[in-house]
Amino acid sequence: MKGLSVLGSTGSIGIQTLEIVRLHPELFRISALAVGSNVDLLQRQVREFRPSVVACGTETVAEELRRRLEDYSEPLWIAHSADGLAKAATAPDADLVVGGLPGSTGLAPTFAAVEAGKDVALATKEVLVMAGRLFMDTVRERGVTLLPVDSEQSAIFQCLRGNADAEIRRIILTASGGPFRDLPLSDMNRATREQALRHPRWKMGPKVTVDSATLMNKGLEVIEARWLFDVPASKIEVVIHPQSIVHSMVEFEDGSILAQMGATDMRIPISYALAFPQRIASGTLPVSFPELGSLTFREPDMDKFPLLKAAYQALENGETSAPIILNAADEVAVDLFLADKIPFSYISRIVLESLDAIPSHPVESLDEIVAFHEEVVRLVRSRWDAS
Amino acid sequence: MKGLSVLGSTGSIGIQTLEIVRLHPELFRISALAVGSNVDLLQRQVREFRPSVVACGTETVAEELRRRLEDYSEPLWIAHSADGLAKAATAPDADLVVGGLPGSTGLAPTFAAVEAGKDVALATKEVLVMAGRLFMDTVRERGVTLLPVDSEQSAIFQCLRGNADAEIRRIILTASGGPFRDLPLSDMNRATREQALRHPRWKMGPKVTVDSATLMNKGLEVIEARWLFDVPASKIEVVIHPQSIVHSMVEFEDGSILAQMGATDMRIPISYALAFPQRIASGTLPVSFPELGSLTFREPDMDKFPLLKAAYQALENGETSAPIILNAADEVAVDLFLADKIPFSYISRIVLESLDAIPSHPVESLDEIVAFHEEVVRLVRSRWDAS
Repeated sequence: MKGLSVLGSTGSIGIQTLEIVRLHPELFRISALAVGSNVDLLQRQVREFRPSVVACGTETVAEELRRRLEDYSEPLWIAHSADGLAKAATAPDADLVVGGLPGSTGLAPTFAAVEAGKDVALATKEVLVMAGRLFMDTVRERGVTLLPVDSEQSAIFQCLRGNADAEIRRIILTASGGPFRDLPLSDMNRATREQALRHPRWKMGPKVTVDSATLMNKGLEVIEARWLFDVPASKIEVVIHPQSIVHSMVEFEDGSILAQMGATDMRIPISYALAFPQRIASGTLPVSFPELGSLTFREPDMDKFPLLKAAYQALENGETSAPIILNAADEVAVDLFLADKIPFSYISRIVLESLDAIPSHPVESLDEIVAFHEEVVRLVRSRWDAS
Repeated sequence: MKGLSVLGSTGSIGIQTLEIVRLHPELFRISALAVGSNVDLLQRQVREFRPSVVACGTETVAEELRRRLEDYSEPLWIAHSADGLAKAATAPDADLVVGGLPGSTGLAPTFAAVEAGKDVALATKEVLVMAGRLFMDTVRERGVTLLPVDSEQSAIFQCLRGNADAEIRRIILTASGGPFRDLPLSDMNRATREQALRHPRWKMGPKVTVDSATLMNKGLEVIEARWLFDVPASKIEVVIHPQSIVHSMVEFEDGSILAQMGATDMRIPISYALAFPQRIASGTLPVSFPELGSLTFREPDMDKFPLLKAAYQALENGETSAPIILNAADEVAVDLFLADKIPFSYISRIVLESLDAIPSHPVESLDEIVAFHEEVVRLVRSRWDAS
């Protein structure tokens, strides 16, 4: 039986992880849960899954949880803040840590899990975007298994299985194109928050949904794939595929292309990461190709989606902190957009101007990476947040 | 360096096998060649690839070859007929036998190769169609590796790599639909030989091209897949996919579908079978998904293509000889059609009437299988061949 620590258990990835656990009580038990502030759902998860460690984002949240669990008599260690997240990430009886904490919050606990020798099912994009080389080096040093949870990266991972020694000619990352796929460039400047949050295929959190509207999300995935699969950006191609059935592809040196497909349901990559190297039932419906009729593909418009181009450029100069600037500026910009403080078109403007204005430099340790991220957030916020 | 015995070296599969060998002289050497009657090409292949054994279909052909090679001074054993084919299939310095002999001719030599402990790259459909269980049992007993060369079966084989323990929910065999895909049923009765031989995607021999026009080819592949991958016919779905880019797919129990794609170029599956478990350059061009634009899928029309339905039915009653009748009757019918003795619509009529008229029964040994095949050929020919 595999012990799981679920970091971000009340988020989209966490909830679906627990759905898979519920389907396979004979395969998984919950060792630890970590959340930011959703005490309401957390206390119900504790009662159902009986973890031994729970971590909350702040002390206040932890105290609220203690109050709600006064009648709960199982042994439970309630921790909080950065130290608490690290405790959940390194719970002694956890074999696999599901890294689903949003944004840069997920960075330190994910590193802590790897340092403690835990296998990691990774959903937090920022880990590879901000600290790609350092993270992969740590994973190799500790000899742990890293399993991508993102549907695109899971697709590539699945295509590479049984092809470990084959030379990769090309990784083809598919993108739904987001809600503004078919909007003319001129209309995108008037796009509202409601339009940006209406993703045509996937139900996800607000940050990643807005990132899908700018294709920043795909740009971050290009950076992730570069590190996860150790391929240069020049071998990673993004293709718009509105139906989101082909989750990504790998072309090998013999011209053979393997693709992983399926319903647009995160339970497929999650169940794959949880049960690896096995496959288990995920509760998803089968796809009928005759019913689908056709799968379409086209090139992304780099003028309309400059953030995708910016992600490629951020990888161009090798070991610099450009991806950290890209990511931090986007984090602030999307936050301002979601707070209705800037129009949609300002997201890419803020990110591109930040990349121009803030000097990039090599960063090496996790501390340096986090410090630089925070500095960029501060700089961008001071320049653009009027309130 | 891998020693290859190429059975059917002057046929489509054989010629392309030698193209791959030419690309990788450091990986492969030719141990043996076997052909029916194309002495002209065979003598050139002998001079280029310097095999130690050559087998010709008949003694006359072997004598003609000896004459043509009077000035050739390398050691070469020229054999002929059934015994000669078996010698080529079991050449002592061959590690892998490429089984590309057409029709039932390929049956005995392929069995001989497996009995001799050779790995087999199988292109001859009839081996699995006529003797599926017996052949797979022999492969297991001898512990040899069986590599499918057919593009669809190779696709499935590639999708299954790294998923050996996963439960297969469905195999999705794609079919181009052949030249009559879009022809109304009523017009198919007037189809000419020239139309039937004009395959929209693949360049292949005349028998398999006509079988593509009736979808018998796909029916035979359903039978092959049933044995190769040990799945019941009920889990094998045929989908019409006119672009022939998706070569076939496998759906697993988690809802994940792996597909193998690529150019419509047999050098991909051939190079994969030759170099397995490695992948090597095959000389094929990459596929551009934006240029393709769309991949389409639809259900096959079982009324228009009754032979596909007949193939499923031939598998229904378990261990009978129905697939042998299906295959033998089709062999005769296509032969008569290619000789301009019957109209196109008679192909399916002859096969279906033969399945009704000839009693099926369990067959066990290779001798029984070959004898029953010959009996069916005789029966069908005596009923339908007026000349």
